[in-house]
Amino acid sequence: PDEAARYAIAAREATLTKPPGSLGRLEELAAWLGAWQGRERPALDRVRVVVFAGNHGVVARGVSPWPASVTAQMVANFAAGGAAINQIARVAGAGLTVVPMMDLAPTADFTVAPAMDQDAFLAAVATGHDAVEAETDLLCLGEMGIGNTTAAAALAASLYGGSGADWAGPGAGSDADGVARKARTIDAALARHAGHAGDPLALARCLGGYEMAAILGAVLAARQKRVPVVLDGFICTAAAAPLLRLNPDGLAHTVLSHRSAEAAHGVLARHLGLEPLLNLGLRLGEASGAALAVPLLRAAAACHGGMATFAEAEVSEKKVSGET
Amino acid sequence: PDEAARYAIAAREATLTKPPGSLGRLEELAAWLGAWQGRERPALDRVRVVVFAGNHGVVARGVSPWPASVTAQMVANFAAGGAAINQIARVAGAGLTVVPMMDLAPTADFTVAPAMDQDAFLAAVATGHDAVEAETDLLCLGEMGIGNTTAAAALAASLYGGSGADWAGPGAGSDADGVARKARTIDAALARHAGHAGDPLALARCLGGYEMAAILGAVLAARQKRVPVVLDGFICTAAAAPLLRLNPDGLAHTVLSHRSAEAAHGVLARHLGLEPLLNLGLRLGEASGAALAVPLLRAAAACHGGMATFAEAEVSEKKVSGET
Repeated sequence: PDEAARYAIAAREATLTKPPGSLGRLEELAAWLGAWQGRERPALDRVRVVVFAGNHGVVARGVSPWPASVTAQMVANFAAGGAAINQIARVAGAGLTVVPMMDLAPTADFTVAPAMDQDAFLAAVATGHDAVEAETDLLCLGEMGIGNTTAAAALAASLYGGSGADWAGPGAGSDADGVARKARTIDAALARHAGHAGDPLALARCLGGYEMAAILGAVLAARQKRVPVVLDGFICTAAAAPLLRLNPDGLAHTVLSHRSAEAAHGVLARHLGLEPLLNLGLRLGEASGAALAVPLLRAAAACHGGMATFAEAEVSEKKVSGET
Repeated sequence: PDEAARYAIAAREATLTKPPGSLGRLEELAAWLGAWQGRERPALDRVRVVVFAGNHGVVARGVSPWPASVTAQMVANFAAGGAAINQIARVAGAGLTVVPMMDLAPTADFTVAPAMDQDAFLAAVATGHDAVEAETDLLCLGEMGIGNTTAAAALAASLYGGSGADWAGPGAGSDADGVARKARTIDAALARHAGHAGDPLALARCLGGYEMAAILGAVLAARQKRVPVVLDGFICTAAAAPLLRLNPDGLAHTVLSHRSAEAAHGVLARHLGLEPLLNLGLRLGEASGAALAVPLLRAAAACHGGMATFAEAEVSEKKVSGET
């Protein structure tokens, strides 16, 4: 990040016509945006939402109440403009790109084999990497993939400990039997790939998915290009988590848009030290939460850039303590 | 509210291409908007932010580190477009109206007399009432007034019990001595007007302020005109609270935009049964939190109105439990 920009933003922030600190997290967001954009006045002219879609071999284990065919159907729905993310991206003033991974061929069932071999994993990471354009002011990442709360839970468990029961939840609508089946499936996967403990990228390859590997690649590319990133919900956060295990500063260019209704997301966010901006009971994915946070960032940038200073507006400043 | 519209919205919501309930509070917001607008497809074409500004005689007691002259200076800043609310309202796509109350003459010091006499209180309520146009899709209310966290704390304490120390906080930047002075001032006011316990409007008159009475009038007018309302922070919420004491359903047409950094706001919100949409550490007022919530409502309305149904998009629905 550009520390000179961060310093200039903090200096200007203190002169704006409001009690110091009274815009709370908006002030932090303005400083964060500007530091990564390298601008004293953060701009959000080019906001991009990228949704990666992928299928999961583990769906054969009955971990989702939805058929795997829904992934392709939802990709078509994104293209036709009929999904939630189409509406929310429009409200956010953001462009939307949908990237179907590997023609939506499923990963291997990770209870019996690594989800991806080395070549496929690296190809998926590269697809995500290439989806990030340098001329982007803000990147919102998200995913679509039937079965991917199971992959996210397995990856989170492998990184932060705990069993399937600790990380499995209803996802897109599993009942209690379904959640128990997810938990057992995750436990089987954790046992199968226990040999990779301590190797975050190997865990992402064995327990993740194509769309999750692409998110990892996109977060990495955004860091290289100094593009600030808004993460979506549980799957997106789990997909990015290996980067933090590799580098304690590895997600400093990201903010977490929201806390999902999926309980594991709050747990994972605490492990990552990410404080969600919103908490609205969302559990959809598609970058819906990430796009929903964009207007907060727009407000932060607009206040920082557009407000008058005390001097410009001839507003009296706070008295120092004891003065009357 | 229009229960037929609410029913139609719920019926359509269940057909949209997402897991049922996966948009969390956005689904509730769409139903709430539509029910009060009387529309099956809620619209947000005419969103209005109204900020009432008033001065407070109690400022003479040293309850604010800011001089009372800042109220007028900030009204000028609103007119010039330099305040936070100007920027946030623009991001929200909302029009902004600022109403200076009583030429910004202060109320009486409520430690020695009622803040307002009957005529002045009713005139302020009427000003707020008249500020609400029927042709409004959504109304965001807020305030500006040096010293008004003291008035809000006094009014909240008089309605819900507790002492000054329970409800006083740093407001726009008081230090510990200042907060203690506020608490003592509130205790004096509560003792002075204890005879009105159980009469919410008399408490609003004795312990509130002109801008708070106007908010009360505006919330009332919005109910009559079936205009949904977004409440801002502590002062705005306290100003509306008497309506809930008069009628347990009296704030059903409102949502609470955010939870302020002022601790008393969270306490008051729980008393009122209002769940804030945002929690970003704001403590500015000016309807800044209310306007910040508008894009969430826009997203809710856009998803409800714009998403494809499962049938339209030819997306498979969730399998019933036990089906494979």
